Amino acid sequence: MKRIAVLTSGGDASGMNAAIRSVVRVGYVRKVEIIGVYRGYRGLLEKDFHPLLPRDVSGILERGGTILRTSRVPDFKKEENQYRAIKNMEEEGIEGLIVIGGNGSQTGNLAISEKGFPTIGIASTIDNDLWGTDYTIGFDTAVNTAINAIDKIRDAAVSHGRTFIVEVMGREAGFIALDAGLGGGADFILIPEMPFSIDKITENMKEAFRKRKMHHLIVCAEGAIHARDLEKEIKKRMPEVETRVSVLGYIQRGGSPTRFDRIIASQFGEFAVDALLGGEKGKLVGIKDNKITLIPLKDAVTKRKRINKDLYKLAEEVSV
Amino acid sequence: MKRIAVLTSGGDASGMNAAIRSVVRVGYVRKVEIIGVYRGYRGLLEKDFHPLLPRDVSGILERGGTILRTSRVPDFKKEENQYRAIKNMEEEGIEGLIVIGGNGSQTGNLAISEKGFPTIGIASTIDNDLWGTDYTIGFDTAVNTAINAIDKIRDAAVSHGRTFIVEVMGREAGFIALDAGLGGGADFILIPEMPFSIDKITENMKEAFRKRKMHHLIVCAEGAIHARDLEKEIKKRMPEVETRVSVLGYIQRGGSPTRFDRIIASQFGEFAVDALLGGEKGKLVGIKDNKITLIPLKDAVTKRKRINKDLYKLAEEVSV
Amino acid sequence: MKRIAVLTSGGDASGMNAAIRSVVRVGYVRKVEIIGVYRGYRGLLEKDFHPLLPRDVSGILERGGTILRTSRVPDFKKEENQYRAIKNMEEEGIEGLIVIGGNGSQTGNLAISEKGFPTIGIASTIDNDLWGTDYTIGFDTAVNTAINAIDKIRDAAVSHGRTFIVEVMGREAGFIALDAGLGGGADFILIPEMPFSIDKITENMKEAFRKRKMHHLIVCAEGAIHARDLEKEIKKRMPEVETRVSVLGYIQRGGSPTRFDRIIASQFGEFAVDALLGGEKGKLVGIKDNKITLIPLKDAVTKRKRINKDLYKLAEEVSV
Amino acid sequence: MKRIAVLTSGGDASGMNAAIRSVVRVGYVRKVEIIGVYRGYRGLLEKDFHPLLPRDVSGILERGGTILRTSRVPDFKKEENQYRAIKNMEEEGIEGLIVIGGNGSQTGNLAISEKGFPTIGIASTIDNDLWGTDYTIGFDTAVNTAINAIDKIRDAAVSHGRTFIVEVMGREAGFIALDAGLGGGADFILIPEMPFSIDKITENMKEAFRKRKMHHLIVCAEGAIHARDLEKEIKKRMPEVETRVSVLGYIQRGGSPTRFDRIIASQFGEFAVDALLGGEKGKLVGIKDNKITLIPLKDAVTKRKRINKDLYKLAEEVSV
Repeated sequence: MKRIAVLTSGGDASGMNAAIRSVVRVGYVRKVEIIGVYRGYRGLLEKDFHPLLPRDVSGILERGGTILRTSRVPDFKKEENQYRAIKNMEEEGIEGLIVIGGNGSQTGNLAISEKGFPTIGIASTIDNDLWGTDYTIGFDTAVNTAINAIDKIRDAAVSHGRTFIVEVMGREAGFIALDAGLGGGADFILIPEMPFSIDKITENMKEAFRKRKMHHLIVCAEGAIHARDLEKEIKKRMPEVETRVSVLGYIQRGGSPTRFDRIIASQFGEFAVDALLGGEKGKLVGIKDNKITLIPLKDAVTKRKRINKDLYKLAEEVSV
Repeated sequence: MKRIAVLTSGGDASGMNAAIRSVVRVGYVRKVEIIGVYRGYRGLLEKDFHPLLPRDVSGILERGGTILRTSRVPDFKKEENQYRAIKNMEEEGIEGLIVIGGNGSQTGNLAISEKGFPTIGIASTIDNDLWGTDYTIGFDTAVNTAINAIDKIRDAAVSHGRTFIVEVMGREAGFIALDAGLGGGADFILIPEMPFSIDKITENMKEAFRKRKMHHLIVCAEGAIHARDLEKEIKKRMPEVETRVSVLGYIQRGGSPTRFDRIIASQFGEFAVDALLGGEKGKLVGIKDNKITLIPLKDAVTKRKRINKDLYKLAEEVSV
Repeated sequence: MKRIAVLTSGGDASGMNAAIRSVVRVGYVRKVEIIGVYRGYRGLLEKDFHPLLPRDVSGILERGGTILRTSRVPDFKKEENQYRAIKNMEEEGIEGLIVIGGNGSQTGNLAISEKGFPTIGIASTIDNDLWGTDYTIGFDTAVNTAINAIDKIRDAAVSHGRTFIVEVMGREAGFIALDAGLGGGADFILIPEMPFSIDKITENMKEAFRKRKMHHLIVCAEGAIHARDLEKEIKKRMPEVETRVSVLGYIQRGGSPTRFDRIIASQFGEFAVDALLGGEKGKLVGIKDNKITLIPLKDAVTKRKRINKDLYKLAEEVSV
Repeated sequence: MKRIAVLTSGGDASGMNAAIRSVVRVGYVRKVEIIGVYRGYRGLLEKDFHPLLPRDVSGILERGGTILRTSRVPDFKKEENQYRAIKNMEEEGIEGLIVIGGNGSQTGNLAISEKGFPTIGIASTIDNDLWGTDYTIGFDTAVNTAINAIDKIRDAAVSHGRTFIVEVMGREAGFIALDAGLGGGADFILIPEMPFSIDKITENMKEAFRKRKMHHLIVCAEGAIHARDLEKEIKKRMPEVETRVSVLGYIQRGGSPTRFDRIIASQFGEFAVDALLGGEKGKLVGIKDNKITLIPLKDAVTKRKRINKDLYKLAEEVSV
């Protein structure tokens, strides 16, 4: 294999640039030409191809976002587009593809792979919801950003004796909420994977008020309940309580990546190049039990990754 | 004067602790007893008084929020409560009061002063909207937090070629929005003090699209227009544009204070103690033209502080 | 077991407070009394014991350092002192001990354990050099701090076209240097575990100069070579090159802990309490292959933990 | 004036990029062509000239260092080189020059100006030691970085009950040390401008030990005394005290600029362009009493800027 394309797709995540840099430089060392595809699958359809040399990825390790840009391309679900993408690559002598992204992106990647073109995915999404990998690139940075925000919000919560509801990202998964809640010292954590009772929360709050603990921090995943809705429910049960809402939003996506994300991104990039060169295809590069590993793309995107219930229980215990 | 009370009131702001520390330690050096009043005017009404010694304020310089807690006490507008507060202080031998807070808090402070009790205010609010002072404690930290958030959001904006609308605090004033917008490199800044045209914004955006600049950053003060409403207006005019909204909210209040806020807070605290000891009353400590100064409380809370229009114009120029 | 003591010992590390908090609160949930021992083994000898309740560890999760303070007690190597420590604990009805610390601290812990008193260790040192655990509390925060510093230093290196030598902590192990170097995008990484040739480094630099790459970043562990010495050696070989040295030093120890350190610290604390209650002794709580685990203390402190050579090789590849 | 050159020179400082961006974009608005000169005076001698358009300075506002690179050119003191620089500019139709830098750089700038070529300086150095301006670009960021480092070091100081000596930049001026010391809560601050007595420091430390305050933080400017030397002197007087040294070094130069530095850099850039267009020359753009202003270059580089002694006294008071 002498020419490999790389693209980033879907939601951007901190560390994507570190992964691109690793693919480009390891490719260079392995004497493979690396072609950057701009704007994700859009660029694959429009032949937005640019060769990348080691110097082209200088100074990007520390930067959030993705220099290759990204996009969401709903049209890519059409088979004709998938065939066109393959044809475009073949016309340019590209023999393998590396897709850096999350669930939706890897679904597109799987489709290309199933049509016979060699592809490897790199697990990268702040949501950390790809099956088979303990971590995805961007998750650690996102949670650290959320924790820093919660630390700031706690200042106000304590100063005023208020209840703050912090909504973090996670439409279908509570990974960010669980780690941000445990790491941020939340009193309650609401995630889609676990049933919760607002009655029980307000009972606990009343009990805490009796012990003169006046401030509370609730972290909820957007997929469990929206902060505004939770606020209304609490107000119904405790009209006297002062509540405030903070929806962290897009600050969770960006920023300079952490050690963890820079390192796994560098490792994933190398592993992906070597996997393609070693004849692997239709696999996702992830990390399992602290080892870089390959997961069948089909499993990664169809199986449901489970939350760590021990961590959820621990969060309850340390918030007494 | 041998005994001075100090309280924090209203919205918390980073640097309030640095001001408390300065009041306590300078008071100690001046051989004045400093009494901490907890939970703002609430504590004044409930005699929540605690003497503070230098060691009691160790390790708080770097912390957001306020160790004295704070509150909003609408009832304090009643004259009977103001008289009760004075009586409570007099019963404990307190001869002067220092109020650390923003507009509402200083209005209460003025009321006490006008009833004959010696008071001094310390300008502290993230909104920076007190007349007569160029800066208030907490503003610099709040804007730095907003700028860091905008830096992260820009990563996503650039990567996706999207338009992001970032809403910052400021119900009646655009100080945060102007500095955060200029410092964060916003393409457009919307503040209550300046008229704006959404038509003009979308025309500019269309022009930029033609030049292939695909991402935009708009910073708006909550008092100018809510980000959600602005998003709708833009969508009406440019249905094809991809927009995202981020409401920064309470993260702007907290966090470890910056150099600027730690230093002016230390200066304000010293100046307030010395002002009371020097016989001043009914004044606000602020900074004007880089000098610590006293402003009549009445002016500070009734006159309207103007935005720096040159800065607004500059922001337009550097966003070409 | 109804009463357990906990202490922190040796070099402080970010996340120690998170571990203390977890021990105290999980202990409370398990209905065990937790006794905080101040100033490490010193406090064990001087009976500096204080019961800790859940509220006593409020607001410490996010703080660096250790509220229990720490110390280095060379005298604790004497058996008489170890017996005295055990006697002191027994007199107060303490039935188990948890020691949060690194290599030296766990050696003392092992000594107590071998004299028959039930003890559990919690792996906590920025150096990450305890055998049997992939990570120790404090390492992730330390490396992130080092990476942020390197990011800043790179600004100067690039702007001036200079060679910067950054010395990080690690007297006998290169874990910090390897991760900080890879994560910080260093051109060369020098660690005690791997032979290095200064001649080869300067040859590579000369080659880079020919390609007009003027700046270089070298990260060295203090145990491999001191930055000042390396500077002299480079100057000998390349008198024309502009070099600058930065010794990061103690900033690596402190600061608010990261997600990773907060979470493993919380997990380690729970696991340690449950291990003691479950009858375990003479073990160290660590994390292996992403699972919290127990390691015989004797192995942890006597066996030598190896560096990940694949990571070292990767660092070379991505710096082309 | 239709064509203006801009360069950065001497030590890099955070915010230089923001100033470049402002010069380029305001120039564009004013219909002046802006020519970037690379590597400071070196580029002026080697005609390293590149036109800069608004898009060329996209995404640099938030970055430390300088995209124009910088250098120190001792040779530029020779008059023949100054004449050559002017000739080079004139040959390219350049009619004015903007020099972003500190003392040494502005001395070169003054020399060019005195030979009849219109120049304006922009005050930019982390040292803040240019006469006539209250602040220089880069100072606020540098001090904030130093304060954050001190915050981390304090964690270790408190945990161990140790004395830490933190050395900050400032060969001839104590501005960084004073602000970092006051903002970082130092017990003692040593600067070149104020006499100090090590005997008095150790006496105070002994007194504090008696009151059971075991940790101390000393901040010194490198120009007052080197941290290592101070450590030795303290050890002579108090052999029993545990001391540690941290030399902050080059981390103070870089990093993403703060609000303050981004905003004054944007203002200085605009002011510099407008000054040249308005016929000014031989002046330095700075900020005095919160107003952007012009200072004669000769005064700026020859007069000695004084430290704020009130601030020094305040630092002593709040460290009781």
